[in-house]
Amino acid sequence: MPHRVRVNEVVTRDGFQSEPAFIPTDTKIELINALARLGLHKIEVTSFVSPRAIPNLRDAEEVMSAITRDTDTTYVALVPNEKGCTRALELAVDEINLVMSVSNSHNLANMRMSCEQSLQQFARIAEMTSGTPMRLNGSLATAFGCPFEGPQAEDRVLSVIDAYLERGLHSITLADTTGMAVPTQVYDLCQAVHTRWPELDVTLHFHNTRGLGLSNVLAALAAGMDQFDASLGGLGGCPFAPGATGNICTEDLVHMLHEMDLDTGVDLNALLQQSQRLGVIVDHALPGQVVQAGPRSLTRPLPESVQQLMQDGRP
Amino acid sequence: MPHRVRVNEVVTRDGFQSEPAFIPTDTKIELINALARLGLHKIEVTSFVSPRAIPNLRDAEEVMSAITRDTDTTYVALVPNEKGCTRALELAVDEINLVMSVSNSHNLANMRMSCEQSLQQFARIAEMTSGTPMRLNGSLATAFGCPFEGPQAEDRVLSVIDAYLERGLHSITLADTTGMAVPTQVYDLCQAVHTRWPELDVTLHFHNTRGLGLSNVLAALAAGMDQFDASLGGLGGCPFAPGATGNICTEDLVHMLHEMDLDTGVDLNALLQQSQRLGVIVDHALPGQVVQAGPRSLTRPLPESVQQLMQDGRP
Repeated sequence: MPHRVRVNEVVTRDGFQSEPAFIPTDTKIELINALARLGLHKIEVTSFVSPRAIPNLRDAEEVMSAITRDTDTTYVALVPNEKGCTRALELAVDEINLVMSVSNSHNLANMRMSCEQSLQQFARIAEMTSGTPMRLNGSLATAFGCPFEGPQAEDRVLSVIDAYLERGLHSITLADTTGMAVPTQVYDLCQAVHTRWPELDVTLHFHNTRGLGLSNVLAALAAGMDQFDASLGGLGGCPFAPGATGNICTEDLVHMLHEMDLDTGVDLNALLQQSQRLGVIVDHALPGQVVQAGPRSLTRPLPESVQQLMQDGRP
Repeated sequence: MPHRVRVNEVVTRDGFQSEPAFIPTDTKIELINALARLGLHKIEVTSFVSPRAIPNLRDAEEVMSAITRDTDTTYVALVPNEKGCTRALELAVDEINLVMSVSNSHNLANMRMSCEQSLQQFARIAEMTSGTPMRLNGSLATAFGCPFEGPQAEDRVLSVIDAYLERGLHSITLADTTGMAVPTQVYDLCQAVHTRWPELDVTLHFHNTRGLGLSNVLAALAAGMDQFDASLGGLGGCPFAPGATGNICTEDLVHMLHEMDLDTGVDLNALLQQSQRLGVIVDHALPGQVVQAGPRSLTRPLPESVQQLMQDGRP
């Protein structure tokens, strides 16, 4: 297992995109600024999509230009097309996240494009951004299974990575868009990727749809992976994927890693405070569990009745 | 990893004991009879405790005597003292589960006895049951940490197992009463137990309090463990443990195991039906996730818009 693990926060993009009520722009900015001080590696700030497609992120430019950019944090925006890329370049975003599904049918449902069309677009975007400091990350959605087609062959996933790298993308994310990954599969795929591209910068993006999010992190760690996306409070999901619930929860992930003596550089207590604040912002219950139960290291006072028993020398 | 994993159902004991509304006796009997047909290894039916302590289990005798006993299933009752053991013997229960906390303070809070007093009682119970076919299982509560004292030393846990075996107990359960276990710790403790007692019949009992229940199962499997307690729908928790939420969810566990090609002999679809029924019985939401999202193997039809795109030969 790695000693140091990088944690990327996606709540203001992957979390907020499916919230029914609009999150005020100032609230987004405050949250991002607060999160940037907590030791997270990347923050996926927003998405340069059509405001009609995702109304909650219609303030993408405003948010991206108003946040205070911490030099130790990589600020990311999701970009679905060349227009989005132009917007990201104007705002000097550190990194853009390009998404294509490994399965063609899911890419059609999600992006309204065939995989071939997505790859052509990635090549054009790589050309547009060539010579700029902006990094390109390529996400492989449905890398662990497609809700329409089922599990995806390992060869197919590897060939998509090949196609990304050929088109000039710098790093990749293996994304479990609809929570279909299982630990043995995660271990095998991560090993295959790591063996073929030992120097490649890889992120794992898990959803906890079927309760396996952190188990899949564990399997990925065992295969040498060291970078994970997560969403504060566990907020999120893919609005175009039937049955998809939330991303893995950032504070639950950090809590697990720290308790396994893996360093993240993240301030867990401050993260838990932000998660409580997030519950107020979205005004509904969140799936995160450590914020409810408290970290395991937090012992509780003995009940008075037990103190009494012990003082009495009984039993 | 083992090829065959035994799954023990605890919902009618660990789940129902903390339900505020009384579950009708007939409902309990029907549920147990339905569960016994699904391939579960053991069913922890009820607890022979004082009806004042746990009102929901005040019908323990009625339930235990009215259920149809399947010969392939081991029927278990929790027993807190000699009186409970007498009741279990009268009803010819297959196995009784004796519980002591590894930490003395938690044992005082939970059982109102010191560990020494608990062990003396176990010795008397072993004598009472000697020569009968009833098996004795000893649970080590707080084996992975005590909410008052924090993590428990491995040596202390091993010495408790020693004490159990010396007093004639046949099998043990390492119980994470308040969900404090983390995967690395689980792996280490399971390896230590397995190395010292390779033939010992060991069950792991995890709670999902901090989201780590299935990750801990994974770590235990990696250390060669092959028997797990779980609760239908994830219902349950320890009413005397602050912050404790539910047991790991039976159907989520079985789903994970099957998708990792581990055999349990359990009928997952029938289990999911029982979980839906349980939601009606207790009349509140349950934490189980597969029952909401469906098994990962269940692919969905292509959206019509995508079918249209593909029929049109576009894009």
